[in-house]
Amino acid sequence: MSGSIYGTLFRISTWGESHGEGIGVVVDGCPAGLPIDESYIQSYLNRRKPGQTKFATPRKEGDKVTILSGVFEGRTTGTPISLVVYNENQRSADYSDIASYYRPGHSDYTYDQKYGFRDYRGSGRSSGRETIGRVAAGAVAGAILKELGIKVSAYTKSIGPICIDYNKAELANTFSSPLVMPDLEASQKAEQYLLDLIEDHNSSGGVIECIVKGMPAGIGEPVFDKLDAALAKAVMSIGAVKGVEIGDGFLVSGRTGADNNDAYVYDGQLRKKTNHAGGILGGISDGTEIVLRAAVKPTPSIARTQNTVNKNNENIEIQIHGRHDPVIVPRAVVVVESMVAITLVDQLFLGMTSRMDRIKDFYK
Amino acid sequence: MSGSIYGTLFRISTWGESHGEGIGVVVDGCPAGLPIDESYIQSYLNRRKPGQTKFATPRKEGDKVTILSGVFEGRTTGTPISLVVYNENQRSADYSDIASYYRPGHSDYTYDQKYGFRDYRGSGRSSGRETIGRVAAGAVAGAILKELGIKVSAYTKSIGPICIDYNKAELANTFSSPLVMPDLEASQKAEQYLLDLIEDHNSSGGVIECIVKGMPAGIGEPVFDKLDAALAKAVMSIGAVKGVEIGDGFLVSGRTGADNNDAYVYDGQLRKKTNHAGGILGGISDGTEIVLRAAVKPTPSIARTQNTVNKNNENIEIQIHGRHDPVIVPRAVVVVESMVAITLVDQLFLGMTSRMDRIKDFYK
Amino acid sequence: MSGSIYGTLFRISTWGESHGEGIGVVVDGCPAGLPIDESYIQSYLNRRKPGQTKFATPRKEGDKVTILSGVFEGRTTGTPISLVVYNENQRSADYSDIASYYRPGHSDYTYDQKYGFRDYRGSGRSSGRETIGRVAAGAVAGAILKELGIKVSAYTKSIGPICIDYNKAELANTFSSPLVMPDLEASQKAEQYLLDLIEDHNSSGGVIECIVKGMPAGIGEPVFDKLDAALAKAVMSIGAVKGVEIGDGFLVSGRTGADNNDAYVYDGQLRKKTNHAGGILGGISDGTEIVLRAAVKPTPSIARTQNTVNKNNENIEIQIHGRHDPVIVPRAVVVVESMVAITLVDQLFLGMTSRMDRIKDFYK
Amino acid sequence: MSGSIYGTLFRISTWGESHGEGIGVVVDGCPAGLPIDESYIQSYLNRRKPGQTKFATPRKEGDKVTILSGVFEGRTTGTPISLVVYNENQRSADYSDIASYYRPGHSDYTYDQKYGFRDYRGSGRSSGRETIGRVAAGAVAGAILKELGIKVSAYTKSIGPICIDYNKAELANTFSSPLVMPDLEASQKAEQYLLDLIEDHNSSGGVIECIVKGMPAGIGEPVFDKLDAALAKAVMSIGAVKGVEIGDGFLVSGRTGADNNDAYVYDGQLRKKTNHAGGILGGISDGTEIVLRAAVKPTPSIARTQNTVNKNNENIEIQIHGRHDPVIVPRAVVVVESMVAITLVDQLFLGMTSRMDRIKDFYK
Repeated sequence: MSGSIYGTLFRISTWGESHGEGIGVVVDGCPAGLPIDESYIQSYLNRRKPGQTKFATPRKEGDKVTILSGVFEGRTTGTPISLVVYNENQRSADYSDIASYYRPGHSDYTYDQKYGFRDYRGSGRSSGRETIGRVAAGAVAGAILKELGIKVSAYTKSIGPICIDYNKAELANTFSSPLVMPDLEASQKAEQYLLDLIEDHNSSGGVIECIVKGMPAGIGEPVFDKLDAALAKAVMSIGAVKGVEIGDGFLVSGRTGADNNDAYVYDGQLRKKTNHAGGILGGISDGTEIVLRAAVKPTPSIARTQNTVNKNNENIEIQIHGRHDPVIVPRAVVVVESMVAITLVDQLFLGMTSRMDRIKDFYK
Repeated sequence: MSGSIYGTLFRISTWGESHGEGIGVVVDGCPAGLPIDESYIQSYLNRRKPGQTKFATPRKEGDKVTILSGVFEGRTTGTPISLVVYNENQRSADYSDIASYYRPGHSDYTYDQKYGFRDYRGSGRSSGRETIGRVAAGAVAGAILKELGIKVSAYTKSIGPICIDYNKAELANTFSSPLVMPDLEASQKAEQYLLDLIEDHNSSGGVIECIVKGMPAGIGEPVFDKLDAALAKAVMSIGAVKGVEIGDGFLVSGRTGADNNDAYVYDGQLRKKTNHAGGILGGISDGTEIVLRAAVKPTPSIARTQNTVNKNNENIEIQIHGRHDPVIVPRAVVVVESMVAITLVDQLFLGMTSRMDRIKDFYK
Repeated sequence: MSGSIYGTLFRISTWGESHGEGIGVVVDGCPAGLPIDESYIQSYLNRRKPGQTKFATPRKEGDKVTILSGVFEGRTTGTPISLVVYNENQRSADYSDIASYYRPGHSDYTYDQKYGFRDYRGSGRSSGRETIGRVAAGAVAGAILKELGIKVSAYTKSIGPICIDYNKAELANTFSSPLVMPDLEASQKAEQYLLDLIEDHNSSGGVIECIVKGMPAGIGEPVFDKLDAALAKAVMSIGAVKGVEIGDGFLVSGRTGADNNDAYVYDGQLRKKTNHAGGILGGISDGTEIVLRAAVKPTPSIARTQNTVNKNNENIEIQIHGRHDPVIVPRAVVVVESMVAITLVDQLFLGMTSRMDRIKDFYK
Repeated sequence: MSGSIYGTLFRISTWGESHGEGIGVVVDGCPAGLPIDESYIQSYLNRRKPGQTKFATPRKEGDKVTILSGVFEGRTTGTPISLVVYNENQRSADYSDIASYYRPGHSDYTYDQKYGFRDYRGSGRSSGRETIGRVAAGAVAGAILKELGIKVSAYTKSIGPICIDYNKAELANTFSSPLVMPDLEASQKAEQYLLDLIEDHNSSGGVIECIVKGMPAGIGEPVFDKLDAALAKAVMSIGAVKGVEIGDGFLVSGRTGADNNDAYVYDGQLRKKTNHAGGILGGISDGTEIVLRAAVKPTPSIARTQNTVNKNNENIEIQIHGRHDPVIVPRAVVVVESMVAITLVDQLFLGMTSRMDRIKDFYK
């Protein structure tokens, strides 16, 4: 079957391999009349572009986006928006021996099992470059959310053992940190941690946190397409993510009901005293801030010698050369933000048909 | 939109409210020729039935399943299987005042926001009874998996602060524990913990773990319908679940690549030395044990006085009466198992079309 | 895969065999707040009920509908609506020998090829009784359309060679005809035609026409989910339908552009001088009357001797006993109406997200 | 919502406007290991390319396809195949005044109603050029069908009043006719008919017929995703198609059951004496030839003066200039063939999960 299409009403269809002709996405279901242009979409892509800090692969990729359809006179037409980034700087030579063996922590083995063979150049479709399509579509989704007064913000919460301190973190600082950490003190510690790991031919995992402000109450489709369920799929579908939490997440498993329930209070408007639930109750947004986190595994491509098996079933030692990120997290922040934005747009569209009175108003 | 249908090829459509006529599910896409009967499905439902231990609501519900279609002469016909549990023992009086206010930790407020009003009797559609449809369908999925040599096993990993010790846990012991904990020593501690909480009019969260044995390699549909993404959605869609992990989950965020990569080794067959990945790489099963966990929040219905707001925007104190579980986890174990089974069947079906040579063989 | 679920936002999931426990449908995606009750849905089902005229099988079936979920205090709650008609009057003996051979014009052979075996009692799932689920869901869709000022009306256009004369036809007369023909003169001729065929152990085909008034312009999703494409699938999915036309249909293939183009004219409002297009241009409704037709094959179950083959590959002669309609058309009229209504609701819901300005208004 | 994605397992996502940067399609769900290259796909596109006969627009468009992803070392990889035809020869000047009024028979008015504005250049997304994406994807589907021994052949059955004579028609002759008519005598008559219409600034409708050989029995998913229902949607979604028939289609409405039933006979193999059903019974293929027809309306763009209304609600006379086909049918033949092929592949894939025994064999 086909797994590269996502969404129900706001649907994206991504394509492309690391070392093929390009990477792209078709956005089907974007409403007509939305102002959009290439420079806006580029601003999203630039956030995941490599070669910008010493904590990302030094590959130089322009990752320049072109709009091929769906936009006319500066506005979306309601027809599919085709976005493409043509590949450049493919140094296939770096990857040629990968064809013969299975890199630990990569999908070489599972792709072979599934498809019989694989485009081994730069991990082919399972490369991190696949996320270019997600981010380009995320920019479109972000533009829609902006029209509706909704803002999605993701950032690095932790890298290895170093976690931000919420008392010192400020969203405004996020992009001052090369690691996209809103607590600049933690960021500096994490930078040193990563420099040591690079020296040691090693890599680090981390956690990305994402908050959504301005989300109206009433969005989410029980019982299977709950907002949190949809977000969990969206975020878990990003390569290297191994866990997803909503609100207080795994912490709630150790808590009592008295401590975990968010009491309602009315003080001019209905509010909750706390937000352990992360803005979602019964799978439906409650109008407060949505909070989620993604656990990201360490980059599996490390420069040190590793044991593995080749296609002739021989036990071998390998060294992975090439240009790899010591940590996936900072460049993945915008990917999480994009997948969340795409999912929210889809759910907001789905949510328009939940009440007969509102449908009648719409068609009056 | 409609959120009560799940799956692509193996599709389930659940329906029913806590205090309506019944709860049910239509399973569409079950292959023909599968032996199945009511007593088999009942055996799944009995695992989530209340009133069986002091750690579950004392409500007596028979939860007896009837097969209305899709089975002929003891085998499935390939047409939709309609399964229903008619409701009995509805003591609506217990719930009548709920209509006027919003219980903390419940979906009263969000349902009202979404739909304009709600069936407040026993939480209506957002009741835990909704999972009856999932479990009945899970039984059908389990029967398919059994034919394919695949076994899904879930159990309680922790309740509040009390966690199983893997050295003392044995799957065979799981059902000897009233809390469905495979470590009977931990189970006893957790029982005492819960008894204290009950006395204190409180409740507990916990963690459910699920392992899958016998899954073939090559299953999962990159990039959006990855096996782990599908499982994350499936499990997060269960009420009260606030986090999902695959393999080592959030732990990997603190690790280095050298520690986290699972090295391959060949010793007669290709194996991995470790399974930090939880049996899934690049969104595709690798043929080893699949491991996932769900964080379950404490039961929001607690007997002690709570603060909330009513529909007239008055700040009030409430006491929730009725018969509630002090912990959701033990009865939810079979729900997790069911959602995982349903998802695996769907993904196994999707996986049949990934290679042209196998399709040719099939249609030869 | 599963073929018994239909729709994207307004989704129906039907189930049931002719001689099983019952026939039903789950409607997922009906908005909250719609007034509905069993007697209203029953009024739709009564239109397809057998035993009412000499031109329908004399089987007596109550076909009494029960609402099992999704309605509370007389209004829909936004959660799935489960509707069931329990079977009665199953005279299985009539059908027992069908198990061994393939009836011409029936799906006995193809079901066996697909599923390996079949529920042969009364044609099982491929019985005309399957349409009960469609009609019950059609009643729900009809109620939504009524709220929006849209009216779907189907009727018999022809039976065998006898066709209505539009100059003599009046919609108001439709239900005065036992054949649901709005031209009562044609109806009488058709009645005599059918009586002769019954005497001759034969049956007749016919054409059903359906018109939709009040449909707003702008509904339909190019390029694959065009309104006409969606309607074509909806109607062709009804058993015995072998052709579907929109507007002037096959007639346009013989015409010139000058004759076929519908000229626009403004006389206080924008109108078309003609409606050859049947209310749909480029797959989108144009605000005028939608017109479609379905070609229905003659009932394959005829009492005369027929040649066929049994499961032992022996050439045999058979006589189909039992109680069969001499023509499918009159009872199928409400089925066409239902499938059209269901499809229109789904497309109206889909159409709510085509423009950014309207989405902003909705969420203001 | 989004209407430019088609299919369930073999999914295509098309994009592009007549005068935008290009037209393309992403094919998601093509199995790995299928040999494919640009020249093969080009051979399909060449069949719909304009400028090849006097019966098609003289526009010169190379319509050269490029494969951007999903193919490696000459075979598909199982990942999305992105195909693009960059536009050239856009003479936008021809179309500029179209922005201000509604052409009869076109979708100008309905697009404006739906989206608020439109890309008016060359009809934008509703141009016949949209079908490039369908045909490129159809080529991929055709390659899969070829591997399975299935052959789809479409041809012109009639143009205006001139219909092929089956006694004189031979499939081998189809491509000798500039009108793609397998009866060369009829073709000559039709050519003259068209030349007269061109002189008269007029255009013609016609009928396309399509036959499928080699389709296995058992394909199609009752009750809503029946093979004929899926084909009806596929074909009706093509612009200008106003009717679809399976087998004898509308003819059966005038027939009796005795005449219409296809009797089975065994003479070494099980066969049907006739094929009025067109190879589909109960929505499932019966292993015989599938036959369908599409009614195509006359080209709405005609050079003669027409009445219409502009955006200021003024009644005006217009003359449509530019380069238009006098008949859509011949170039649409390969579009019908493509949509049928795409649909058959999807249904063949869906059909792999109908029987438990075959699934067990597959996963053994």
